Amino acid sequence: MTTSTQIRMAAYPLGMPQDSDFDTVTVDLPALADGQVLLRTIYLSLDPYMRGRMSTAKSYAAGLQLGDVVLGGTVCEVLESRSDDFTAGDIVLAYAGWQTHAVADAKHLRRLDPAQAPVSTALGVLGMPGFTAYAGLLELGRPEQGETVVVAAAAGPLGSAVGQIARAKGARAVGIAGGPDKCRILLETYGFDAAVDHRSPSFVDDLAAATPDGIDVYFENVGGAVTAAVLKRLNLYARMPVCGLVAGYNDTEQPQGPDQLPGFMRRVLTLSLTVRGFIQSEFVPTHYENFQRDMAGWVRDGQVRYLEDVVDGLEQAPEAFRGLLSGRNVGKLLVRVGTDPTLA
Amino acid sequence: MTTSTQIRMAAYPLGMPQDSDFDTVTVDLPALADGQVLLRTIYLSLDPYMRGRMSTAKSYAAGLQLGDVVLGGTVCEVLESRSDDFTAGDIVLAYAGWQTHAVADAKHLRRLDPAQAPVSTALGVLGMPGFTAYAGLLELGRPEQGETVVVAAAAGPLGSAVGQIARAKGARAVGIAGGPDKCRILLETYGFDAAVDHRSPSFVDDLAAATPDGIDVYFENVGGAVTAAVLKRLNLYARMPVCGLVAGYNDTEQPQGPDQLPGFMRRVLTLSLTVRGFIQSEFVPTHYENFQRDMAGWVRDGQVRYLEDVVDGLEQAPEAFRGLLSGRNVGKLLVRVGTDPTLA
Repeated sequence: MTTSTQIRMAAYPLGMPQDSDFDTVTVDLPALADGQVLLRTIYLSLDPYMRGRMSTAKSYAAGLQLGDVVLGGTVCEVLESRSDDFTAGDIVLAYAGWQTHAVADAKHLRRLDPAQAPVSTALGVLGMPGFTAYAGLLELGRPEQGETVVVAAAAGPLGSAVGQIARAKGARAVGIAGGPDKCRILLETYGFDAAVDHRSPSFVDDLAAATPDGIDVYFENVGGAVTAAVLKRLNLYARMPVCGLVAGYNDTEQPQGPDQLPGFMRRVLTLSLTVRGFIQSEFVPTHYENFQRDMAGWVRDGQVRYLEDVVDGLEQAPEAFRGLLSGRNVGKLLVRVGTDPTLA
Repeated sequence: MTTSTQIRMAAYPLGMPQDSDFDTVTVDLPALADGQVLLRTIYLSLDPYMRGRMSTAKSYAAGLQLGDVVLGGTVCEVLESRSDDFTAGDIVLAYAGWQTHAVADAKHLRRLDPAQAPVSTALGVLGMPGFTAYAGLLELGRPEQGETVVVAAAAGPLGSAVGQIARAKGARAVGIAGGPDKCRILLETYGFDAAVDHRSPSFVDDLAAATPDGIDVYFENVGGAVTAAVLKRLNLYARMPVCGLVAGYNDTEQPQGPDQLPGFMRRVLTLSLTVRGFIQSEFVPTHYENFQRDMAGWVRDGQVRYLEDVVDGLEQAPEAFRGLLSGRNVGKLLVRVGTDPTLA
């Protein structure tokens, strides 16, 4: 009998998630049925969208029930298999969530090839965040040669991919991040054309200086004050793919006035803006294959670089998740739940 | 020497335009140069967009300068011509504005054929409002067979065209209007599937009852409380073409809180909405020819009906314009500035 240590939802967080919103339990896993495999978690991905599921609010995806294992993408090792498609030792992309071991249906897994790329990248640049950047920017943002693309949380896995893909397509990439260290990473590691610190008192002026020709694509993943500043720089026919609003995820009350919506809609009207919400799964059927080919190529030839921020131990997940929501980490945040056998 | 009586912008209105914001003067018109014609105004179109030009705010179009003749589409008779393209007696679509006579370059005019349709329709169902409905609905709203299309100010020339085009394309049309008389017109004259009175205390519930399958396309031309109610009924992947926000055109202060923008953006995200501002001129090159063909056909075969609200005398324009902004009229609002020689 294999046991799994699990972190479960104990209460819906009000504002920033607290330790008391989570329970840690160790359970016996059931025996494998036909078509199932036993998994050991190596890496757990932490992503902002998880905060949205820790709620009963209506969304494109069902929220977590109290008592559920917290969800999340994982890279796992197959320990035992009752499926013809996998054998023990295979490394797979799974959706095991915040736990050390899991029983999963083989049909929901994808085998990873450690010779192609480090397996952790399946949760980052070659996984969901990278694909969100790729599909949202190319299908909805549609930057043209020489246009200006702006993205916030630009040091993160999504924002850094947006900026680098924009440059690969001949656009000018301007990244917004919190603090001078992250801004330096934008310029030096990711090759953004300009970096703007949203914590600086001169942020609004700095953004204007960094976008002398205005903004043609704003890839929205934060909301709040950053968005308000960006709106003033948008050009006629600008596009605004919206894949996240992390600035407001922990809000517990209706934001105070004045009401910004009429002014926003007036700008939509007078600038002929396109504002489009999306979740990456919409574009999997049409864009995933191209993404795998293009992104793997860009990573191989150095056009797209990535950083990882790895935290050790499942028990660190709640604190690491709070850090993510506060903008404390740089690069793709992963929890190493167990040893990675593909590393020497 | 011909004179023209003109209504000019004397001051930028604060809120609802006042008589004192306008000046009436009579001026001598210059002699015709080569390629010019002398026009006598028959019909002047009054449209909500004009309020936006009575301002110094940045927009897709330059605002009026103080002293300018107020702008507007007109149907005119050619009195004298120094152009090979027009002769005296021709009826033309022009942009002469709020005045009785004008000198215009022939290249900006389009000849109308009174045998094809009443010439006044060139300002309504076969003109700018009809084209805005056609291009915005078909290119941006893209209703599918059986989907639900909602439009407000639905008794007006734009809204009534949106609803009838939606039905011509096999969609379900729900109109919102102010008061039971307008709602009756929606059902009896325009053939909407349902009509909802936004002045009723049960408006929010009535809208829900009228949209049992939710809303797939909301053609936005009003804003404000109507929009807030519609947002709650939008379906996944709903489209929202935005061509006007008349509810806020006279606002003089930032609207009071709470701030509705974060909630709006959350809905854009979780429902994968598309919000797209536009002005009809964007689609003239690609859609105008099809519009002329389709709309003329629909009007001829009775699939699209229209109403006109004609006010006599240029001096009535300011008061009629206030009525338009207050929702007082039904159908396309026209000022008959001079006699229509095409009427028996």
